[in-house]
Amino acid sequence: MDKDSIVKRKVFHTLLSIEEAELKLEQLGLLKPIGEEEVELENAYGRVLAEDIFSPIDYPPFDRSEVDGYAVSIKSVEGADELHPKKLKVVGKVSIGEVPSISIAEDFTTSIDTGAIIPKGADGIIMEEYTERVTPNEVIVYKSIVPGENISFAGSDISLGELVLKKGTRITYKEIGVLAALGISRVRVFKKPKVVVVSIGNELQKPGTKLALGKIYDTNGYAITSFLKQRGFDVRYHGILPDSEEVVYNEITKLLTSFDVVITSGGTSAGEEDITYRVFERLGTILVHGLRVKPGKPTVIAISREGKILFGLPGFPFSALSVAMLLLVKVLERLEGFESRLMIARAMSTFKVRKDIGRTWFMPVILSSIGGKLFAILLQTSSGSVSALLKADGIAIIREDRDYVDEGEEIEIARFGDELKEAVIIGSHDTLLTMLLTRFGIIDRVSIGFVGSYRGLQLMRRGYIDVSPIHLLDPATGEYNIPFIEKDKELSNKAVLVRGYRRKLVLAFAKGNPKNVKGFEDILRTDIRFVNRNRGSGTRIYIDKVLEDIAKSSSQSFSKIVRNISGYWYEVSTHTGVAAAIAQGRADVGVCTEHAAMLYNLDYIPLTWEYYDFLINVHSMDKNIIKKFIEGLRNPLTKDVVNGFRGYEAPSEMGLKLCC
Amino acid sequence: MDKDSIVKRKVFHTLLSIEEAELKLEQLGLLKPIGEEEVELENAYGRVLAEDIFSPIDYPPFDRSEVDGYAVSIKSVEGADELHPKKLKVVGKVSIGEVPSISIAEDFTTSIDTGAIIPKGADGIIMEEYTERVTPNEVIVYKSIVPGENISFAGSDISLGELVLKKGTRITYKEIGVLAALGISRVRVFKKPKVVVVSIGNELQKPGTKLALGKIYDTNGYAITSFLKQRGFDVRYHGILPDSEEVVYNEITKLLTSFDVVITSGGTSAGEEDITYRVFERLGTILVHGLRVKPGKPTVIAISREGKILFGLPGFPFSALSVAMLLLVKVLERLEGFESRLMIARAMSTFKVRKDIGRTWFMPVILSSIGGKLFAILLQTSSGSVSALLKADGIAIIREDRDYVDEGEEIEIARFGDELKEAVIIGSHDTLLTMLLTRFGIIDRVSIGFVGSYRGLQLMRRGYIDVSPIHLLDPATGEYNIPFIEKDKELSNKAVLVRGYRRKLVLAFAKGNPKNVKGFEDILRTDIRFVNRNRGSGTRIYIDKVLEDIAKSSSQSFSKIVRNISGYWYEVSTHTGVAAAIAQGRADVGVCTEHAAMLYNLDYIPLTWEYYDFLINVHSMDKNIIKKFIEGLRNPLTKDVVNGFRGYEAPSEMGLKLCC
Repeated sequence: MDKDSIVKRKVFHTLLSIEEAELKLEQLGLLKPIGEEEVELENAYGRVLAEDIFSPIDYPPFDRSEVDGYAVSIKSVEGADELHPKKLKVVGKVSIGEVPSISIAEDFTTSIDTGAIIPKGADGIIMEEYTERVTPNEVIVYKSIVPGENISFAGSDISLGELVLKKGTRITYKEIGVLAALGISRVRVFKKPKVVVVSIGNELQKPGTKLALGKIYDTNGYAITSFLKQRGFDVRYHGILPDSEEVVYNEITKLLTSFDVVITSGGTSAGEEDITYRVFERLGTILVHGLRVKPGKPTVIAISREGKILFGLPGFPFSALSVAMLLLVKVLERLEGFESRLMIARAMSTFKVRKDIGRTWFMPVILSSIGGKLFAILLQTSSGSVSALLKADGIAIIREDRDYVDEGEEIEIARFGDELKEAVIIGSHDTLLTMLLTRFGIIDRVSIGFVGSYRGLQLMRRGYIDVSPIHLLDPATGEYNIPFIEKDKELSNKAVLVRGYRRKLVLAFAKGNPKNVKGFEDILRTDIRFVNRNRGSGTRIYIDKVLEDIAKSSSQSFSKIVRNISGYWYEVSTHTGVAAAIAQGRADVGVCTEHAAMLYNLDYIPLTWEYYDFLINVHSMDKNIIKKFIEGLRNPLTKDVVNGFRGYEAPSEMGLKLCC
Repeated sequence: MDKDSIVKRKVFHTLLSIEEAELKLEQLGLLKPIGEEEVELENAYGRVLAEDIFSPIDYPPFDRSEVDGYAVSIKSVEGADELHPKKLKVVGKVSIGEVPSISIAEDFTTSIDTGAIIPKGADGIIMEEYTERVTPNEVIVYKSIVPGENISFAGSDISLGELVLKKGTRITYKEIGVLAALGISRVRVFKKPKVVVVSIGNELQKPGTKLALGKIYDTNGYAITSFLKQRGFDVRYHGILPDSEEVVYNEITKLLTSFDVVITSGGTSAGEEDITYRVFERLGTILVHGLRVKPGKPTVIAISREGKILFGLPGFPFSALSVAMLLLVKVLERLEGFESRLMIARAMSTFKVRKDIGRTWFMPVILSSIGGKLFAILLQTSSGSVSALLKADGIAIIREDRDYVDEGEEIEIARFGDELKEAVIIGSHDTLLTMLLTRFGIIDRVSIGFVGSYRGLQLMRRGYIDVSPIHLLDPATGEYNIPFIEKDKELSNKAVLVRGYRRKLVLAFAKGNPKNVKGFEDILRTDIRFVNRNRGSGTRIYIDKVLEDIAKSSSQSFSKIVRNISGYWYEVSTHTGVAAAIAQGRADVGVCTEHAAMLYNLDYIPLTWEYYDFLINVHSMDKNIIKKFIEGLRNPLTKDVVNGFRGYEAPSEMGLKLCC
């Protein structure tokens, strides 16, 4: 590799902001509809109107009755009430859909259906409830009416010639209903751009195949295609292409004959393998090479010689999805004639961010709604995480002119969907908790984050979450959890501690104990690989406390001991994560619950019993879902369930407020 | 008609609440999935998982680099910083997708791509930014690392064997992405029920045909079908059937051979023509005959002899849609294995409702978001309105145990969609306003309601809306609008008055003046039919004031004069509504803006000039859209536009704050 190619590796053209990129495409005249066509109403769903719709009729089309009752002239029922009823002669009936032949004279009436034409001479309708049909030919009326009562006049809802729907309107079921009501069976709409998605990368394999070492399954091809499908676009997934400029060039050239937009993902990094850029350059003109966003910088946009849009997304799923949500969707919507606007929610930041000016940051967040406020909680994941896709409610957008966002500031959130979970539970991991939430019928209604007891406790102290499960040992008293609340004024103002259950921690190893582990100190053995828990978890605190005791008793420093533990830095964030690592041979020993060890059929040595309790936000106590949760814990049947699992014990005070 | 059939007309079986209806179906075992099948991932979008998904791999599948950089052993870079850089020997490169053959010894390194496998011997990655590649074989490193830095460990995101997705999960793009990432190419999902929609009614015509008198176009068939399509169901529209028991019976019998659910609309009223009930009874067993809701009571649910669900919706669109949203969707989702829950938003009621206990009320509302609060504003429409479909943001649900809801109370709202308009403008109607909002580029971002100046002013006094256009003449001073704010402390605390424009009101009549109208008093002529404006509109106030003057000068009572005006009770709610009524011969004269009269090519006599100004909520002044609106009004080019329309004048202070 010579110096030149090293330098080239970092060259991006001038980076653009999302807005600048859109403006550039706009100014080049690329963001306009690709055509128009006429479609039947049945096929108009989801399309965008290419014409203003003026009502061709009055709606209702005739003066009609709004109720079942009797059509009368006002004079016939003047002064009628419960004490002074009037008797009228009934001359037939006007049914819905029928043209009445009768005319209503004074002291006469006709029964009339909801929706039926008002007969001549009638200027109001008495509701059936205020009448008594004494004979087939006579009705007693107990109420007078004002002119026009219970009549819906022709054109009063929509007038003939009125502008009903504007060009550029997206046709949802509401528009379909109104168009049908006005008798419109065909509408002019903009053509839908045909979109194709291609994944690029030598490392990619198709799901369903056996994964080779170093490879990953193609995620973006599926995720981006179905994301665009969910947004209503006409999109097809074409498959995986290798990191070969020639193959990609030839394939996209073919696709351009039948598609209006080609979207690639991957192949856009600044490495020498920047295939996408080179292929797009050969196919037309590069318009955007790099965005001032993080993640999502290696985005490439070009216009092909045929005038079609080439859109290169980055390879990591979260990066690709962020750019797709915030720019690609806008571009595609403009092509189908829809003036889109991003739906941005506002939420209170629960975190501090220090960042460089000149780059907009996208950060996955969970949204928590408590006491009428919306909180954005940062999802701490690595940039290549796919589980973040499932857990996040949206993307926090920290604009490029900001170098700092403080906790408590209002920030912008692009939401993934419209549905918010009813409660957010963040704290210590436990396998039984998930089962209990399922049993209580609320598992689908909560967001759960397992980040450890300490982080959960911190979020609760600020009132950001509904529930935080914790198991924290106070070394001074040997008591679990309660001391942490009692001595923390801020926390005890914000939350109550509700008793959960006891569970057993164990030192787990493979079935049959092949490494002959005898106790905790064996994790110091050089032939043993340890799997640790994440920092901030109650179990990690327990592990480090035991290691400190070992250090003290052997007169070594904690850091020295730790340095010699193979795998001390190998952290997973759940008990099952620990058990899985051992079961699959990635580690020899680890600390997890007895239950997790049993789930993975491991052998183990018992370590300690601990209390797994629930901090509950005082503002959340009147949420229905929280009431259900507490009721569930108090239910005697739940105690039987808990006691039925080895490694768990239900104390008699389960579900009761402990303090403070 | 004999006494019996009269009585029969009102008989419903015991009415059920929505919840009771669901429970009844549930207890009969009808709300369970209709089957399972396996589908390719490509076809899984929108389906519901029939199995728990456990991860078949670790994700990431191997320890991989999170950045572009250099793989090192910690010892090689211990203590390195800007002042004490370390020089390492470069031994090749690990590309993404490649299995590294090299092992990293102390003082050696290899360059590595984001996503590439960590080579043996390396326990951290130095980001490229902290290095300088001085020669092809040497790199200078300016930073030390901690163990595991920039490494994403195998299984750290998702562990092999971890429960990733639960049975009953709806597969959106997020789930597709995660399934793909885990290499899962086929999933077991629940079968989708095949649903068909049928409209019943002699009064119904297919859109696109010429409407006969007394008929209306079928709305529900299209609206309900596309509503269910929008919710992801496999639904087909079958067309219109007449009110004939035999025809409907035969047709539904046929449909039951190929569909799992048959939905009808119409034909369910309590009239003698209750076709749906009778047909359902012949086809199987009636389970629900009437719901304790308003509107929506005449809902019928039955189970056919084949065990298929028959669901009869009421005929009015809003009624049908309310029941479809709140019950039908739930039933259909349960059939496809999805444990649905209604998304209920909470908003502050801006109205009072007195109602009977024992019936849940559904009321269409506009939602207004101001100062962090969500307000529900009642949409005042007749029960058969279709325009309400377009205007409403959702349905307020007033539960059956309530007999009263006060203003300011929190109420439940079932929302139609997730998108809220950025501002709500309610008040007096004007045709130019719509054009200006279009010109300012904000028409699609506002909800507009034309209910008249007074109602708008009242909503603004409580701070419920963003903008209220008003034109109110103070008879005492002859001044427009300002006096109404100045003397109203509550209002002037809540809103500022921004100058709009002047417009001319005219007395309009057909081209050529066929009725020889000479002045306002001619509306008293018995050969002339008047079209009035709605109560509470500024124009109605103007009309009534002129009529009162006429009454005084002729020594008659106002009510007597009004009684003799043909059409005084014929009210429309817009200026174009007035003009359209005259143009189409429904009325002879009316009061509207000169502009509306010209739009409909009418002749007219000038009446007066008035100020059409804007009350703006003080809390809305920092909304971007409101800033844009005020800037637009202040723009000198806008003044030219306003002056360019006959009947309008832009005052020099347009867009400026008038008071108070």
